[in-house]
Amino acid sequence: MSHRIRHTPKAEIESRLERLKPLVEKASLDGAFFHYKIDYFYLSGTMQDAFLYVRPEGEPILFVRRELGRAQRESPLEEIVPIKTFRDIKPFLGPLKRVGMQLDVVPYAMAMKFREILGDVTLVDVSPLTQQLRKYKSPFEISILERAAAISNQVYDAVPDFLREGLREIELGGMLENFAKSLGHEGLLRVRSLNYEAYTWHILSGRTGSIVSQSDSPMGGLGLSPAFPVGASMKKMKRGEPILVDFGISYHGYHVDQTRMYAIGHMPEPFVKAYNVCRDIQYRVLDKALEGMRTADLFMYSKQLAEDAGFGENYLGYGLHKVNFLGHGIGLELAELPFIARTHDYPLEAGMTFAIEPKMVFPNMGACGIENTVLLEPGGYRILTNRDEQITIV
Amino acid sequence: MSHRIRHTPKAEIESRLERLKPLVEKASLDGAFFHYKIDYFYLSGTMQDAFLYVRPEGEPILFVRRELGRAQRESPLEEIVPIKTFRDIKPFLGPLKRVGMQLDVVPYAMAMKFREILGDVTLVDVSPLTQQLRKYKSPFEISILERAAAISNQVYDAVPDFLREGLREIELGGMLENFAKSLGHEGLLRVRSLNYEAYTWHILSGRTGSIVSQSDSPMGGLGLSPAFPVGASMKKMKRGEPILVDFGISYHGYHVDQTRMYAIGHMPEPFVKAYNVCRDIQYRVLDKALEGMRTADLFMYSKQLAEDAGFGENYLGYGLHKVNFLGHGIGLELAELPFIARTHDYPLEAGMTFAIEPKMVFPNMGACGIENTVLLEPGGYRILTNRDEQITIV
Repeated sequence: MSHRIRHTPKAEIESRLERLKPLVEKASLDGAFFHYKIDYFYLSGTMQDAFLYVRPEGEPILFVRRELGRAQRESPLEEIVPIKTFRDIKPFLGPLKRVGMQLDVVPYAMAMKFREILGDVTLVDVSPLTQQLRKYKSPFEISILERAAAISNQVYDAVPDFLREGLREIELGGMLENFAKSLGHEGLLRVRSLNYEAYTWHILSGRTGSIVSQSDSPMGGLGLSPAFPVGASMKKMKRGEPILVDFGISYHGYHVDQTRMYAIGHMPEPFVKAYNVCRDIQYRVLDKALEGMRTADLFMYSKQLAEDAGFGENYLGYGLHKVNFLGHGIGLELAELPFIARTHDYPLEAGMTFAIEPKMVFPNMGACGIENTVLLEPGGYRILTNRDEQITIV
Repeated sequence: MSHRIRHTPKAEIESRLERLKPLVEKASLDGAFFHYKIDYFYLSGTMQDAFLYVRPEGEPILFVRRELGRAQRESPLEEIVPIKTFRDIKPFLGPLKRVGMQLDVVPYAMAMKFREILGDVTLVDVSPLTQQLRKYKSPFEISILERAAAISNQVYDAVPDFLREGLREIELGGMLENFAKSLGHEGLLRVRSLNYEAYTWHILSGRTGSIVSQSDSPMGGLGLSPAFPVGASMKKMKRGEPILVDFGISYHGYHVDQTRMYAIGHMPEPFVKAYNVCRDIQYRVLDKALEGMRTADLFMYSKQLAEDAGFGENYLGYGLHKVNFLGHGIGLELAELPFIARTHDYPLEAGMTFAIEPKMVFPNMGACGIENTVLLEPGGYRILTNRDEQITIV
């Protein structure tokens, strides 16, 4: 396996900036600052300590605090300027009235510090602009997502090499993390949130699959302590209980998400039945997505399918703990546009990648479900995490 | 080994809130909101999706979005109120003029949303208040830090079980992560930053030890891609090069930081010499800290020691890439108050825990150094990461 480090090609960056331009103009901005590394990486090719200044006229400027040499090697941008403090950008600014900043993530104090430099400007949130662009994946991005999916498939194939009676959930998590890292998995998953941290070791067995937590997920897991109250726990895995492995992969900054079911000895019948319903929902929703059904409708349609199959109580959580999404876009962030969710209403389009995850929860008994990362193409869909979907018994 | 999950005792929470009260009064606040989970965990005992409202009069209120049952079990607070949106807090508020929020981390958009609910209030940053409290560790916190340090010591002891010629840096990282998780390590390290993510696998061998990156560290490492440009890389480790292992541990939310040096076959002589100087600097600085020398002076004193030993060029980075700190407080965050740094000026006091990390970088050759997590006690210091400090040759 090769471990070539891939830089973002110049044509790729140029095309992204070209697509950004009309959005900046439409928002009547005199300039826009991208401070969040996910977004300035997308627009510049580097995640060095920097931020990008996009102007309606003239080339964008990448201001770099550290480390200049790497930023210059990684980014094909022409204008890369070293700075020590924010104040150093002053000479590069024209007269500004309406200024874009990533107000959904930039801390209040940082925005105020910037305003001090910029003067009395109106701040406009520009995170929706890059989120809009990032919905559509280019062939370059798809090639990286395919590699991430190949790593993910290998990890799920390897679970039977490690899983055995008495192994703790977190121990399996560590073993998979170890194996995945050897394949190029970057370890950290990225989400846009002040308090929620994504993690890879979401491994739930038996009753821990029915424990909810702070995360917006049908199944939070027990976790390791009140300070890490999600995901795999010290619980030992037993024969005859459902074992849900939901292990995200990141590769060259791109994520894929996948879930498969395992059991030691045998899988209890209700979970087999529920799992088959989840698979059925997945394919029926994908078919409807291809026909152009909108995301809110896809979500409601999936609920109806679960109810019709007799699993309305269990689908996407139970009781007061149901979640309102069935899928999430995926790319440089683990969860990004589009969302297949109650409150999102648009068609899914070719070039979009998303994770679809119909899951069922049974109080005190456990959880089951499937998840795949899918690419929509003109006239069809392609499951990138295309590993066998059968329940694996070890 | 027991895996008992420890909740924060009621007396502990009460004492923290008691110490917070005069700080809130001194700041003339009509109320303060703690939205960042590190800080509301410290004040409430839970990291569920919530935030804490502290009033000058009356008990603090923990507003919980998800999950109420766990928050109630984990937190000894009396007033725990479920909410669906921010708006639901309105009936619980008195008349407010000066309101505390964690402006260093709360996103601008979130602060504005809050202001909409609170009316025309003056926002004051209250992060310095909890940072001030958190500098001093209680016996309960120290008992958790000791456990974290015991895990860390075991991990460093285990390196020779894994390290061999031709192993990639990231593979060693995965193996240590796997082993550490089986001991209770929680995997994610926490830092207060929009863009910098901490990670455990900071393993650098030979020339990768001299590669700098976006991180404020003498040695950034090569990392895995432009999207993860720090820490361990795919480089294979060779005989006769310095191998620096800097693998942070988190346990029940508390971190320890440690660095030890390894080599396959033999360690080149310049690195042996430089390493011994680092150890000497560590102990001399700790002695001066006990005598009451202030942090900025400790930093400058350590620079002088490095220069006197002939390593001024290499100490804490080389050329333009030197860093301006020798140590960082450690606890619920990997880096918190106090800092042994050029721009911090106060004495270190009993009850404080910090990591001290004298390190040397040699361009194109590599890096070496030591790091320990230390507790200051009345009249002495205790190295929590008290594993053997000799260079380990495998």
